[in-house]
Amino acid sequence: MPILPIDAGRYGSREVKSIFEEEQVLRYALEFEACVAEAQAMLGIIPKDAGAEIARKARSGMVRLERVKELEAVREHDVAAMVEALVEVCDEVAKPWVHYGLTSYDVVDSRIAMQLRDALAVIERKMKRLALLLAEKALAYKDTPAVGRTHGQHASIISFGLKFAVWASDMLVHIKGMEEVKSRALVCKTLGVVGTGSLMGDKAVDVQSIVAERLSLKPVDAATQVVSRERLAEFIARLTLIACTLEKIAVEVRNLQRTEIGEVMEPFKEGQMGSSAVPVKRNPIKSERISSIAKMLRSMLIVALENIALWHERDLSNSANERFIIPMSIILLDEMLESMISVISGLVVKVDRIKSNLNSSKGQIFAEFVLDALIRKGMDRIRAYSIVQSIAFSAEMRGVEFRDALKDDARVTALLSEEEIDSLFDAGKHLASSSRIIEGVASNVYAVCKDMTTS
Amino acid sequence: MPILPIDAGRYGSREVKSIFEEEQVLRYALEFEACVAEAQAMLGIIPKDAGAEIARKARSGMVRLERVKELEAVREHDVAAMVEALVEVCDEVAKPWVHYGLTSYDVVDSRIAMQLRDALAVIERKMKRLALLLAEKALAYKDTPAVGRTHGQHASIISFGLKFAVWASDMLVHIKGMEEVKSRALVCKTLGVVGTGSLMGDKAVDVQSIVAERLSLKPVDAATQVVSRERLAEFIARLTLIACTLEKIAVEVRNLQRTEIGEVMEPFKEGQMGSSAVPVKRNPIKSERISSIAKMLRSMLIVALENIALWHERDLSNSANERFIIPMSIILLDEMLESMISVISGLVVKVDRIKSNLNSSKGQIFAEFVLDALIRKGMDRIRAYSIVQSIAFSAEMRGVEFRDALKDDARVTALLSEEEIDSLFDAGKHLASSSRIIEGVASNVYAVCKDMTTS
Amino acid sequence: MPILPIDAGRYGSREVKSIFEEEQVLRYALEFEACVAEAQAMLGIIPKDAGAEIARKARSGMVRLERVKELEAVREHDVAAMVEALVEVCDEVAKPWVHYGLTSYDVVDSRIAMQLRDALAVIERKMKRLALLLAEKALAYKDTPAVGRTHGQHASIISFGLKFAVWASDMLVHIKGMEEVKSRALVCKTLGVVGTGSLMGDKAVDVQSIVAERLSLKPVDAATQVVSRERLAEFIARLTLIACTLEKIAVEVRNLQRTEIGEVMEPFKEGQMGSSAVPVKRNPIKSERISSIAKMLRSMLIVALENIALWHERDLSNSANERFIIPMSIILLDEMLESMISVISGLVVKVDRIKSNLNSSKGQIFAEFVLDALIRKGMDRIRAYSIVQSIAFSAEMRGVEFRDALKDDARVTALLSEEEIDSLFDAGKHLASSSRIIEGVASNVYAVCKDMTTS
Amino acid sequence: MPILPIDAGRYGSREVKSIFEEEQVLRYALEFEACVAEAQAMLGIIPKDAGAEIARKARSGMVRLERVKELEAVREHDVAAMVEALVEVCDEVAKPWVHYGLTSYDVVDSRIAMQLRDALAVIERKMKRLALLLAEKALAYKDTPAVGRTHGQHASIISFGLKFAVWASDMLVHIKGMEEVKSRALVCKTLGVVGTGSLMGDKAVDVQSIVAERLSLKPVDAATQVVSRERLAEFIARLTLIACTLEKIAVEVRNLQRTEIGEVMEPFKEGQMGSSAVPVKRNPIKSERISSIAKMLRSMLIVALENIALWHERDLSNSANERFIIPMSIILLDEMLESMISVISGLVVKVDRIKSNLNSSKGQIFAEFVLDALIRKGMDRIRAYSIVQSIAFSAEMRGVEFRDALKDDARVTALLSEEEIDSLFDAGKHLASSSRIIEGVASNVYAVCKDMTTS
Repeated sequence: MPILPIDAGRYGSREVKSIFEEEQVLRYALEFEACVAEAQAMLGIIPKDAGAEIARKARSGMVRLERVKELEAVREHDVAAMVEALVEVCDEVAKPWVHYGLTSYDVVDSRIAMQLRDALAVIERKMKRLALLLAEKALAYKDTPAVGRTHGQHASIISFGLKFAVWASDMLVHIKGMEEVKSRALVCKTLGVVGTGSLMGDKAVDVQSIVAERLSLKPVDAATQVVSRERLAEFIARLTLIACTLEKIAVEVRNLQRTEIGEVMEPFKEGQMGSSAVPVKRNPIKSERISSIAKMLRSMLIVALENIALWHERDLSNSANERFIIPMSIILLDEMLESMISVISGLVVKVDRIKSNLNSSKGQIFAEFVLDALIRKGMDRIRAYSIVQSIAFSAEMRGVEFRDALKDDARVTALLSEEEIDSLFDAGKHLASSSRIIEGVASNVYAVCKDMTTS
Repeated sequence: MPILPIDAGRYGSREVKSIFEEEQVLRYALEFEACVAEAQAMLGIIPKDAGAEIARKARSGMVRLERVKELEAVREHDVAAMVEALVEVCDEVAKPWVHYGLTSYDVVDSRIAMQLRDALAVIERKMKRLALLLAEKALAYKDTPAVGRTHGQHASIISFGLKFAVWASDMLVHIKGMEEVKSRALVCKTLGVVGTGSLMGDKAVDVQSIVAERLSLKPVDAATQVVSRERLAEFIARLTLIACTLEKIAVEVRNLQRTEIGEVMEPFKEGQMGSSAVPVKRNPIKSERISSIAKMLRSMLIVALENIALWHERDLSNSANERFIIPMSIILLDEMLESMISVISGLVVKVDRIKSNLNSSKGQIFAEFVLDALIRKGMDRIRAYSIVQSIAFSAEMRGVEFRDALKDDARVTALLSEEEIDSLFDAGKHLASSSRIIEGVASNVYAVCKDMTTS
Repeated sequence: MPILPIDAGRYGSREVKSIFEEEQVLRYALEFEACVAEAQAMLGIIPKDAGAEIARKARSGMVRLERVKELEAVREHDVAAMVEALVEVCDEVAKPWVHYGLTSYDVVDSRIAMQLRDALAVIERKMKRLALLLAEKALAYKDTPAVGRTHGQHASIISFGLKFAVWASDMLVHIKGMEEVKSRALVCKTLGVVGTGSLMGDKAVDVQSIVAERLSLKPVDAATQVVSRERLAEFIARLTLIACTLEKIAVEVRNLQRTEIGEVMEPFKEGQMGSSAVPVKRNPIKSERISSIAKMLRSMLIVALENIALWHERDLSNSANERFIIPMSIILLDEMLESMISVISGLVVKVDRIKSNLNSSKGQIFAEFVLDALIRKGMDRIRAYSIVQSIAFSAEMRGVEFRDALKDDARVTALLSEEEIDSLFDAGKHLASSSRIIEGVASNVYAVCKDMTTS
Repeated sequence: MPILPIDAGRYGSREVKSIFEEEQVLRYALEFEACVAEAQAMLGIIPKDAGAEIARKARSGMVRLERVKELEAVREHDVAAMVEALVEVCDEVAKPWVHYGLTSYDVVDSRIAMQLRDALAVIERKMKRLALLLAEKALAYKDTPAVGRTHGQHASIISFGLKFAVWASDMLVHIKGMEEVKSRALVCKTLGVVGTGSLMGDKAVDVQSIVAERLSLKPVDAATQVVSRERLAEFIARLTLIACTLEKIAVEVRNLQRTEIGEVMEPFKEGQMGSSAVPVKRNPIKSERISSIAKMLRSMLIVALENIALWHERDLSNSANERFIIPMSIILLDEMLESMISVISGLVVKVDRIKSNLNSSKGQIFAEFVLDALIRKGMDRIRAYSIVQSIAFSAEMRGVEFRDALKDDARVTALLSEEEIDSLFDAGKHLASSSRIIEGVASNVYAVCKDMTTS
């Protein structure tokens, strides 16, 4: 009976989870053994017919997971059990040459790279889909003035679309960064027990190149018994950075959906319960879940980093925890991406609330522009700052419109006419470079994701 | 098909894992609802027969996991689904009073406390068993002089038993610390949506006290919708501290089992494979696994700490990740304890290697005592230090016994006779307070664990 | 010229920082050497007059920091330099007996414990002061109904004082927890190079007991060259837990100070600038700083935990980082406490905003109680939930008062009269157990902190 | 009086530390203001002579740190104080246009990028120098057979140079990775309060491009009030990955310097003390320090990642901790690189110990090749494995040479002649692809670092 929510079916998409199931893990390992045997036969390291036989049997489905598990129970070694099970189904001519010159972690590290390769294809597709959705929203709300908030306080006017543009730009950074990481993390290794290529002599490097090409991986340039864990850690670092961006978006959705702000709302399913006790709530639970899972990614990165400093040509202190952090970091990021796509694509944007929030501070949101107008009229910046601040604080206390308070202040009216003051209080005029920024980002997104659609 | 190694059966004992299985989670939740209903009936908050009916049905097994999951698929809310399933099986009189005045997290937090309570019983038993094993080993090797190493260098003479005594003492600290944490982490809550006790008026506090007593928990003194996450984080901090001690022991076993040191060896099973390529190895794989898993515990603590600062009366950003870190931290610590008990109880201690290592530095291990002898004869400490250092470095370079080099140095022989020099080179004389320390620790262990046996 | 903000004077109180300055570090070390020499003389390990001379000179101020630093530049070893400088100022009779039988980390670990001892006295005083302030606020707003929020959404009625009561209760947990940690972390050690007591024979344990008593520390029961790092890690874990509670309070202040909520405001100094560009802002910068620094504490705990698994009788991989994490974790927590005391004691609570927020959802905040009333009249919980939800959602969409919408719904009015409906919409009636909870916590706080005042 | 070891002068090189001193921080900020004013003047946003005056005064040294600190004491805002101090020294014509259209974090984020830019120049130079040193060592020991160890156990033959080649390859990965990160982390921003460019209208983007080019930075494509913290986190992630590689090398040096292994030794300075109590030790203290500091880097990455999810257009919860983690992560990595360069360049490699260690297992290190020879003769892999294992274990127990035990075993001699057996026991024959791998890595290193020398 399942315990953890990945195995219990709560988190993770089918397509990504299947990559990490025991059956599939076995298939990857066998495919790697097949490719190695073929390469070794091609280079004359093992007999031609042995290579062919091993490759055929490895891909035949005849090596059964149940048998491997039986053998593992005795050997206490999962790769050795896989090798033994493969030997069992091979003809005599091939038996001695199965797993020839390899060490277990040649299989494990290359299999992990194959998993990352396949998982990344899914992850990248979803990253691009999300980037496109964000770019679309950015363009859609390009000309919608909204409250920009810093320190939780109303600060100035923003284009509502700019929020999405920043996130789209962040996703572009990740897409590019992930592309770079691939060349380092998707590596295979066939260099044996301590990285010398041992039994294959100086041809080990050639075997590795051939296998790498067949598996769409890169050959590692140097390794101990294992591929340097820096590569895996860098991969997980990128997953974590993506997770943190998703968390940032999720936190913004949660904040904008607050009862008191109400500018957006997560899609809410008919029949869904917000709370078992309070019937009226519409909680941003998808975004909250994303926030929750982001912490998992961050923490697993620490494990990946601690795994780097193995002893000598390797110790095993990376092994057990990688059984968790590799599938979990990928499956959970996939879950986060899936959820975020659903949140953004179904996001309810309440333009009326955006507008009423702009007005809720009785005009104080325009303070930056009043300050500017005074400075432009020649007032000293520090003095202008102090005057604007005191008028604003007093207006707030008295509950009057900031605009009216300004018109009542001789220091202001000495420099600005009523018309000039009024002209400052037009939110649509203060979007400044927003359009250029948003269009620039959107155009970059479309260039990178042109092979995708958002539907 | 399972993915993560807990669900795949690789890690964790049956008894602890069962506490976290979905079926058992449901049983805990229902038992909590039963206790609440009984307490509310007793206090006149709900009708007497409603209370009895709810308690009966909650404990009847009539609420089936499958039904709960069906309802959850619609409601997207696991606790609401459990409540609905319980209502379904109750008589009309009870239906309105199921989950009365509660919020979902009253159930979740109290259920978690029940799980911790039951898991801790197992964990504590294993901690005590390990402490006893360590105390036994400490006593067994109390009088065995061995090399003490600092910075990876031979430093001075140690009692081999002292290593175990330090660890036994560390376990005692953890046993005491865990006892203290229990009073803070094993709490139940029945204070409703925002911690006021809402529908139960000022009797909510009384309901909570009654329920707590029945469940062998403490009532929480104040809470929001959830119990303060500090309590859970402190619990996981203690688990992590224990994990780090186990890692420390594991690292020492791995270091002492190095080919070049060889003072101990993990038990090695007949038929076990050390390496798929190298047949002669006996790898300390259990200790390596402990090292590996310790990193998981450390990292999950960060998640637990990040969960503390929830917004207002709570947000949901703790929820998804607690589905991982609560079962994982406990199950993995259980696995570590189990492995360590097996390592220590079957540990092969090679007294001959301990002895030969003592002599391997050609007597330089006794340098501290030579220094002391010179000082006791009136030589200035700094001068003595410099003399001993130069004699030792030169002896090492020339490959001669340190003792002989000392006898050849006039600065030394001016103060120490040959007999005096010889008398310094007796390892058994330099165990100093080791016996008192070891016996002191062992006696504390026996006092705390007197109800346990190591067999 | 200073770089880090502790040395640049930005963070940390004078009284705590002085404990970690180089000069003071030297004084602690010398005081330890003095106590050891006195104990050794008392037990006849070293000559009586040597003991007296060492103690006198160690406390005389004659050992100058500059001289120690000169010697360290040559020796590359700070403790050895301190010992040499002490030898230099001692009479001949005492020179051989300085630092007798000790290893450097006897000094370092005991000195750290002395620092923790003195720092804790300050930290605990501030914790109690904060607990009292929180209890006072809890009592002051005990009867003030306010919006309780979950998921960022209005959820139900809360006593505004309950927020403070939860935090006060959390502080009590920390005060008790810290008291327990003290008995484990404030330990001294005089057991020499590898923890046997080496040159002091079986009297090393007695020396340690005497020294411990003089320094108001506990003697360690067993150790290697160093005190087990578990003890330090546990200490920092408690500091971190406290930091997380402070972060939680800070996040709540920041959220409640949001422009849209406005229920509280941090004290704001005359002349202070909220923003260099926007003059009207009053940012909760102290709370934001607390949030920022909390992350430092969390991260340093990881370092402390990684330091536990040292090799053999110790390696040095804890040393360099402890020079950061020990002073930083304490000084930064002190800064956080100081800031939080200032925030809470000067907190502006805007009761009018609390009240208007309660009404801002047009009565939907009372949904929990409407649901209850329907159930009490015999309606099935699931049906009641669904009816209340649909009325509320529709009322919200149409912008009408929830109360009026209920009165317009036949399913509701079939069970509840207008008067009954009206009686539900009285916030003051729904504080339930809040008073009992708050008074219970406050009474516990006063019992624990009765020696303190908040002024 | 300094507290933390960076300010106390213990860690960090002069050239890197100076980048983070308060005086230099002020200079960076003023240079940024100068560039912005010039760009704004060029684009007609501010008067030409105002731009010239601001730039001149900003670079004149007339804005004194003391004055800025005085103003900060009043304003509680460091950037506002710098702006005010600059205004003070400007002519009237320029006063209104100082810091025009900017927000504080335009200055802070751009200044940080300038610091990273300059620090990276140093860091990269040291990375390349280390890569070259490692490549040199790899080539120097290319043909030196040595024990390869896995799980702390002798595993097989390795080229001693291969160890260095793996590390050199890791450094190449970091050099390339850092180059990529630069394009993302070294960005400037002039987009004002909420990222729209506010007062500069749609020319804000142009101002930013001009400033970026002058400062050798990239303009950010979209931002809120602050540059997305992902960029800083990615930068620190790369620093941390480098730190973990250095830790890996350091752990290997520490392990190889163990008394029992003794294959390398850190350079040891005349007069240096290994231990205050034990005169004969030569501790690998530099490598231990690197190990210690690596933990700091890892932990600070967590802080950088937690800083990403700021609220809305930013909150301040990144600010205080970045005052620590930015300088600390860079200065400490610099310290690690400096130390590692010193360790590797002065590393004593003891070829005689390498050789004697190869023989210390009485030939068991050749087991992999015996297994291979039997398989090549047609023996089944599983059977061969089991035979070789049993012969080896028995030989070890009896203390006989593995080679002799093989010659005594009929199952072996049935397939292998004495000569064939003897020929297997030649370490130099088993280096396999080591040369190709080492030469490949070295050639890549020279290509990347051709502008550097190791002297």
